[in-house]
Amino acid sequence: MALYVYKFGGTSVGSVERIKAVAEKIKKARDQGDQVVAVVSAMSGETNRLVALAKEIQTQPTEREMDVLLSTGEQVTISLLCMALHELGCSACSYTGAQVRILTDSSHTKARIQEIDDRKIHADLKSGRVVVVAGFQGVDEHGNITTLGRGGSDTTAVALAAAVKADECHIYTDVDGVYTTDPRVEPKARRLDKITFEEMLEMASLGSKVLQIRSVEFAGKYNVALRVLSSFEEGPGTLISYDEESEMEKALVSGIAFNKDEAKLTVTGVPDLPGVASKILGPIADQNIEVDMIVQNIAEDATTDFTFTVHRNDYLRAMAILEKVCSDMGARRVTGDDNIVKVSIVGVGMRSHAGIASTMFKTLAEEGINIRMISTSEIKISVVVDEKYLELAVRSLHKAFGLDKKEQ
Amino acid sequence: MALYVYKFGGTSVGSVERIKAVAEKIKKARDQGDQVVAVVSAMSGETNRLVALAKEIQTQPTEREMDVLLSTGEQVTISLLCMALHELGCSACSYTGAQVRILTDSSHTKARIQEIDDRKIHADLKSGRVVVVAGFQGVDEHGNITTLGRGGSDTTAVALAAAVKADECHIYTDVDGVYTTDPRVEPKARRLDKITFEEMLEMASLGSKVLQIRSVEFAGKYNVALRVLSSFEEGPGTLISYDEESEMEKALVSGIAFNKDEAKLTVTGVPDLPGVASKILGPIADQNIEVDMIVQNIAEDATTDFTFTVHRNDYLRAMAILEKVCSDMGARRVTGDDNIVKVSIVGVGMRSHAGIASTMFKTLAEEGINIRMISTSEIKISVVVDEKYLELAVRSLHKAFGLDKKEQ
Repeated sequence: MALYVYKFGGTSVGSVERIKAVAEKIKKARDQGDQVVAVVSAMSGETNRLVALAKEIQTQPTEREMDVLLSTGEQVTISLLCMALHELGCSACSYTGAQVRILTDSSHTKARIQEIDDRKIHADLKSGRVVVVAGFQGVDEHGNITTLGRGGSDTTAVALAAAVKADECHIYTDVDGVYTTDPRVEPKARRLDKITFEEMLEMASLGSKVLQIRSVEFAGKYNVALRVLSSFEEGPGTLISYDEESEMEKALVSGIAFNKDEAKLTVTGVPDLPGVASKILGPIADQNIEVDMIVQNIAEDATTDFTFTVHRNDYLRAMAILEKVCSDMGARRVTGDDNIVKVSIVGVGMRSHAGIASTMFKTLAEEGINIRMISTSEIKISVVVDEKYLELAVRSLHKAFGLDKKEQ
Repeated sequence: MALYVYKFGGTSVGSVERIKAVAEKIKKARDQGDQVVAVVSAMSGETNRLVALAKEIQTQPTEREMDVLLSTGEQVTISLLCMALHELGCSACSYTGAQVRILTDSSHTKARIQEIDDRKIHADLKSGRVVVVAGFQGVDEHGNITTLGRGGSDTTAVALAAAVKADECHIYTDVDGVYTTDPRVEPKARRLDKITFEEMLEMASLGSKVLQIRSVEFAGKYNVALRVLSSFEEGPGTLISYDEESEMEKALVSGIAFNKDEAKLTVTGVPDLPGVASKILGPIADQNIEVDMIVQNIAEDATTDFTFTVHRNDYLRAMAILEKVCSDMGARRVTGDDNIVKVSIVGVGMRSHAGIASTMFKTLAEEGINIRMISTSEIKISVVVDEKYLELAVRSLHKAFGLDKKEQ
C-alpha cells in the first residue's frame, strides 16, 4: 500500500467527462489498496472567464479580491470530483485551501505556503476516504483567501506530498513525460524514464514547460519524488528525483532545451572600469525587466563589450534604456538582435566529464552554425544562435549526445 | 449617520452592469455618511449552471459537496462587487460566510444560523469600509461549508442586521415594494408604505413571493426593520416592522393574497371517533406531503367529512394514499378537486374589528362566488373557491376593503 498525491491540471478536469475519467483513475488506485490525495485546478477556461468578468469591472482589481474570485474555480472542481468519486462508490471528501488548512503568507496572487495542517487529511485517509484538495489556494493567518500564482496547483501538490509524506507525487498533464527535447522540433526525441531535480530545473527554466519551476524547487528541497505522466494515456511517465549514484551508465547529457522568447542586446566600446555592469543593468532592473544570460568580453583598447538577453517583449524598452545609458557612460554604441534562440544541453553527467562543451561547439561548427553567445553552469551549457538554426542545432546536438530514439 | 444592511438578489447582480449599478447605490449611501453592509446572492443563472454540472455527474450528489459547489456562486459576486466599489473609489472588503464567520448547524443545504461574529464587520465599518458578505452560506463548527437553502440570502441579511444592530435591513428586489395584492390580477393594487411582520408572514405564506418567509420570521424575532424596495427604480419601498399603536387610522385589511398551487381532498362519511384526523393525515405526513388548510364538519349521521388542501404536485399521490385510508377506516368515499384557488384577506386591524368576515362572505356572495372551504386565524381569513373566480374574488375584495388606488 502506497500513499500518492495526484495532481490534475485544468485540461485534465476540463469537462464533466474528464472529471469522470480522473475519478476512474483514482478509483483504480484505491482498488489496488493505495491511498490518494487528489489536488485539482480550475476547469480549463474557468479562470479566464473569471478574469474577464473582473476586467469588465476594473482594469486593475485589488489582489485580495482577485484571489477571492479566482479561488472559486478550484472549489467547483473539488466538489464535482468528489461527486464523480461517490458515483463510483468511492468515499471522498473535498477541502478548499482554507479548510485543509494551507497556511500562506499574505502576498495575494503569489502567496507562499508556510504550513500545512495534515490532521484532517490523515484522519480521512485512515477512514478509507480519498481526499480532494483545491490547488493553487491557501489562507493567510487573518483568514484571507490567497492564491499561489500561476502553476500554483503543482506547488500545492508537492507541498501536500511533503506534508503527508507521500511515496510519490504524480503530476498528470497533457504530455506523457519529460522528453530529451521538444518532439515538435526533433521527432526522434525520447521520453526520459528519470531525470534529476537539478536537470528538471534547467529544462523547465529553459523552456520545457512541463512543470512549474517553483514546484520542482520545492520537490527538491523536501525530497518529494515527482512523476510527470499523462492524464489521457497509460504509461510510467518520467520520475524526477535525486540522482542515484548507483546508476552506472548515467547519460552525460539528459536533454536539449531551447528558448525562442529572448532577445540579445550589446553595448560596445564600454570604458573598462569597475561598476560597469551595474551601471548598465541597474536601469534595466529598475524597469522590472528580467535579464537572463550576461556575457562580458574584454576588448583590446581598454574598452569592453557587454551583452545580455531579455524577454522579447522587453526588447524595445530595454533598447531605449540602453541608448541613454550608452551616451551617459561614453560607450560606443548599442546593438541588438531579437531573431535569436538559446539552445542548451542539460545533464548532471557533465559535472564529472570533460569535453562535453567541445563536443557541443564542434557539432554546431560542423553544421555551419555560428555561436553568438555562450554561458555555462555546472549542469548546462547554453549557446545563442540565429533563430533560423533552431531545428538544425537541436537535432544535431540530440544526435551527437546519443539522445535519439533507439531503432525499434 | 445610519447603519444599513443591503441585500441584493441574483437578478440585481445578474450582470456586470447591474453589479456596477449596485455599487453606485452603495456609494450614494456612503456619500451621505451612512455605513453599509451588503449581502449578495449568486449572479442569476449561476446557481442553475452549477446544479446542471453536478447533475451531469450524479443524480443525487451529497449535500456537503453541493454546498461546496453552490457557495462559489456568491463568492464570485462578493469579489466583483468589491471591485466595482473600488472602481468608484469606495473602500470595501469581501467576506465569505466562513470568513465572517457565520456559524451554522451542520444541516447541509438547509443549515440554520447559530451565531455571527461581528468583529471583523465592525472593525471594517469603523475604518470606513463597505463590508460585502456572501449570502446564503455559512460554516459549521467543523469548518464545513454550509448553505441556508433557497432564499437564504434574505436570512443572511436579516441575521447580519440583527448581529450588527443595523437601523434597517433593505431587501432589494425586482419589485418596488409589497402590494395590496398581485398587480397582475388587480391593476388597482397599491404599494403599501408599511406592513407588520405578522401581516407579511401571512402575505408571504399565502403566495406573495416577495420575501422568504424564514427571513421575515427572523426579522420579527429580532425586531429588525425590513424594507423591501426595487434595485432598478428609486422609491421608498415598503417598511416591514412591528405595529405601532399610535396609528389611528390603521386599515382593517392590508392586502389580499391568493394561492393557485393547492388542491383540495375530502373524505366523506368518516366514522366520528377520536383519532380520525391523525388516521387520515398520518399516512399523508409519512409521505412528506405538506398539508395547508384543514376543515372538519360534523354530519348528522354520526359521521364526519374531513377536508384538507395539499400542493397540487402532491394531489395524485395524496389521493392514492387516501383511497387506502378510506377503505381501512370504513369511510364513505374520497373526492378531490385541483381546480381551486385560496383567497385570503390579511390585516392586523381585523383583530379588534368584528364584521370583517361577514363583509368578505357577503362580497363574494354578491358576485355569485360559491365558497368551498373557510379557514381563519387572528389576522387572516382564507376561503377556497373555484379557480375560475380568482380574478373576480380578488378584485371585489380589494374594492370592498378600500384597497384600490386613490383617484389621482
